[in-house]
Amino acid sequence: MNNININIAGLGNVGSYLIKYIENNTSSLEKKLNKKIIISGICAKNKNKKRIFSIKNYQWFDDPIEMINESKPDLFIELMGYEKGISYDSIKHSLNNDINVISANKALIAHHGNELIDIADNNKLAFLFEAAVAGGIPIVKSIKDLMVGNNFYKISAILNGTTNYILSNMTEKNIDYKEALEDAQKKGYVESNPDLDIMGLDSAHKISILSSLAFKCKILKFDNIYTEGISKINKHDIEFARQLNYVIKLLSVAKIKDNKLVIFVRPIMLNDKSQLAQVNDVLNGIQIYSQELGEIFFEGKGAGGEPTTNSIISDIIEYNSKKSFSSLGIDFKSLRICDNLSIDNEYSSYYIRMEVADKPGVLANITSLLKDNNISIETLIQNPQNKQNISDYIPLVFTTHETYFKNMNECIKKISLLEAIKNTPIIIQIEK
Amino acid sequence: MNNININIAGLGNVGSYLIKYIENNTSSLEKKLNKKIIISGICAKNKNKKRIFSIKNYQWFDDPIEMINESKPDLFIELMGYEKGISYDSIKHSLNNDINVISANKALIAHHGNELIDIADNNKLAFLFEAAVAGGIPIVKSIKDLMVGNNFYKISAILNGTTNYILSNMTEKNIDYKEALEDAQKKGYVESNPDLDIMGLDSAHKISILSSLAFKCKILKFDNIYTEGISKINKHDIEFARQLNYVIKLLSVAKIKDNKLVIFVRPIMLNDKSQLAQVNDVLNGIQIYSQELGEIFFEGKGAGGEPTTNSIISDIIEYNSKKSFSSLGIDFKSLRICDNLSIDNEYSSYYIRMEVADKPGVLANITSLLKDNNISIETLIQNPQNKQNISDYIPLVFTTHETYFKNMNECIKKISLLEAIKNTPIIIQIEK
Repeated sequence: MNNININIAGLGNVGSYLIKYIENNTSSLEKKLNKKIIISGICAKNKNKKRIFSIKNYQWFDDPIEMINESKPDLFIELMGYEKGISYDSIKHSLNNDINVISANKALIAHHGNELIDIADNNKLAFLFEAAVAGGIPIVKSIKDLMVGNNFYKISAILNGTTNYILSNMTEKNIDYKEALEDAQKKGYVESNPDLDIMGLDSAHKISILSSLAFKCKILKFDNIYTEGISKINKHDIEFARQLNYVIKLLSVAKIKDNKLVIFVRPIMLNDKSQLAQVNDVLNGIQIYSQELGEIFFEGKGAGGEPTTNSIISDIIEYNSKKSFSSLGIDFKSLRICDNLSIDNEYSSYYIRMEVADKPGVLANITSLLKDNNISIETLIQNPQNKQNISDYIPLVFTTHETYFKNMNECIKKISLLEAIKNTPIIIQIEK
Repeated sequence: MNNININIAGLGNVGSYLIKYIENNTSSLEKKLNKKIIISGICAKNKNKKRIFSIKNYQWFDDPIEMINESKPDLFIELMGYEKGISYDSIKHSLNNDINVISANKALIAHHGNELIDIADNNKLAFLFEAAVAGGIPIVKSIKDLMVGNNFYKISAILNGTTNYILSNMTEKNIDYKEALEDAQKKGYVESNPDLDIMGLDSAHKISILSSLAFKCKILKFDNIYTEGISKINKHDIEFARQLNYVIKLLSVAKIKDNKLVIFVRPIMLNDKSQLAQVNDVLNGIQIYSQELGEIFFEGKGAGGEPTTNSIISDIIEYNSKKSFSSLGIDFKSLRICDNLSIDNEYSSYYIRMEVADKPGVLANITSLLKDNNISIETLIQNPQNKQNISDYIPLVFTTHETYFKNMNECIKKISLLEAIKNTPIIIQIEK
C-alpha cells in the first residue's frame, strides 16, 4: 500500500483534533484512500502547550519551511491562520516546490488567493480549502464540482458562528449585546481578536471565496466588500424586529446584478419564517440560487475541531482521488474578472432607530427630510416601555418603503444633523 | 482535445433536457472537463414523440443494448427508469463490457443495486447515481466523498416532491386529500403510476440508497423497509396537527439502533418550528446526523429536468475527474451487511383519530384498552365543527405519551374490534 506523506503546520484546536482523528481512524481512512497517511512533520508556535495528542510520536519542526524542505511531503496542511506572514510564505513555498496544499485559512485566501491559486493551477497542484468556509458544510466542493451545471446568481448566508450565537442569544433571552458577547467569550466562541467576528470581517473573507466559486470569477479585491458588524444592534432592535415578524441575522450576501458583483456583510432583518431565520446558535446556513435549481439551502456547524477536520479529510480524499485540479473549479486563467457594484445601489426597505428629543416639531422635521428624499414610512413604532424612562430622549423607530441604500444613507446623514437627534441613527436593511 | 463518448437511453423529460443542456453549454462543459462530450447514440421507446431537441442530430437506436454494442461509449446514461427489464439488462451489459454507467433509476438501485455495484466495483468502473436521490441536492456525493470522516447514525428526510406538494397544499389551503391529489395531477407532478409516489415507494427507494451510503452497508432487502403512504391523511388530521403546533410530512427515516438498521417511510407529525417542517411544495429536504458534525440539513428541488440534469452533469464530471471508483464510497466487498430492526421497536408518541359511535361508555371502553396496554393519553381533542354533523359517529382524536409502535398497533387493533368504532383508526407517529 502506498503512502500519503503529510505535514501539518499549526496545532491549535483544529490541527490537534485532525491528528487525533487520523490516529483514531487509521483503518477506515486506509479503506477509503487505499493508502496510508503518514504524518512526516508537525510544527507550531509553541512546542510545550498541552495538546490532545502526544507530539513525541511525530517529528517536530519550529519552522514550516524547514519542515517542508526536509520532509518533502505530498501534502502541506496549513492551519496557522495568519492573513499573510508565515502562512503565505509556507503555502507559496509549497506550491513552488511541487507540493500540494490544504488550508483552512479564509483570511489568506480572501486577500492573496488569486496569486496562490494561479501558481497552484499553473503547476497542476491541488490547493484545497473546504475548511475555510462553513467547516461542517461541504459547500466549497458542492459549488466547485457538484453543482457545476448551474448559473448561480445569488448567495445569502450566515457564515460566522460567533455572531450568530450572539444574535440568537439576544433574541432568545432578551439580553443586550454586551451581555451576549460576554457569554460567547465565556463559552470560548470568540477568537483572540474578536473584531474579526464582530465586525463581520470573517464573514467577508468567506463570502468572498464562495462568490468566486459560484460566479466563476477571480477573487474580488477585499476592500470592495462592504462590511458592517453587529455591535450597534441592541435588544430594542431585536424586540422591534420580533414585533414586525423579522429576525436579525448577520448576513453575507453576494449577487450578480447587471453582470457586476455586489457583495456585502451586514445585519439584515429576515422574515422569521425563512430558512435562514431558523439558523440559530453557532450554526451556519447558506442559501444559494441558480437559474436551473432555484434555491438550495445548506445548514450545519461552521467551526470547531470536528467539523473543520471533516472538511480537511474530504480535501485529503479529493487530493487522492482526482486526476487534475483547479482550485476554483475551472482553470484560474479562464476565470473572469468581475466588476464590483457598490452597495449604494441596493434597493430595499429599511428599519431606522434613533433617539430623539421629546419636543414638539421633531417628528415633522424628520418626516419632511424623508419626504425631500422621496422616502416613505411604512410603519412607525413606539416602544411604550421606553416612554416611561425619565429621559429627554425617546426612541423613534420606523420602517421605510423601498429605496436605494445611497438615498437612505444620505437622508439619515441629514437627519443626524438635526439638533433633536442624539447619536447616529441605526439603519438595518429589511429582506422581505 | 479528447472526447467523452456517451450514449443516452430514455428520452423523457430528463433525457431530453440533458441533451438540450449539453447542446447549449458546450463551451462551459469543455472548460470544466477539458474534453468534448460526444453523444454517439440515443434511444427511447417512442421515436416520434415531440421533443425539445432534434433527434435528427443524433444516431437513433431502438434497442439500448444494440446501441451500446455498436457505439461502444465511455459512458452509458440510463434514464428509462424501469425497476428491472431493459434498464437492468442494459446497465449490466455495460458494466460487463467495460462501459461506465450513470443512472437516475432509484427503483432499480434499491432492488438490484447490490448486484450491479458489485460488478462495477469489481471491474473498476464508475456506476454513478447522484440523480437517483433528490435531483437538485448533491446528497449522494456529499455523503460518499465530502463527509467521509463521519460516523452517521440517522437520516430524516422528505424525498418525494409529489407527496410533499399534496401535503403542503392540504395544509395551506385547508383542502382534502382528493382535491390536492387532483391539483397535483393537473400540474403534472404525479407519475403515470401514482402509487409509487403516494404509497411511499419512491421515498423508500431513495432512503434505501442514502442509508447504504451513510451507514456504509450493503443495500437492505427492499421488503424490509416499512412503507406507509399519505392517502389516509385527511384535512382534519392536518387541522388537529396545526392546533398541536405540528406539521404532517411524509418522512423517510433511516437510523442505526443497537448496531442494526431501522428504516421506514410514513407520515409523521413534526414540530412546526423544525427545519423539515419548513420544506414545502415540491421541495426535498434532508437532515443527516453524525457524531462529529451533529445535524446537517440540505434543501432543494428534488425532481424535474433541470435539477436532475444538474446531477447527471456532476456525475459526468466525477467520471472524468476521478482516478478510481466505488459506487457506495468504499469498495463493495468492504461494506458490511446491516441487520434490520423492525419499526415495531420505534418508541414514540402517537396521534390517533377514529370515528366512534356517539353513545355512553364508548370512551370508557377505549381508555380501558389503552390502560391495559400501558398507553397513557397526553391530549384529548374534539373537533367542535364535526359535532354538528347529523351523524351517529363523531371523531375522537387524541395523542399518547411514548410507547412502542408494536404496542400502539396491537392496542389499536383491539380498539378497532369494539362495536362502537367505525373504520380503522388512523395512527400517526409524532416526532417531538
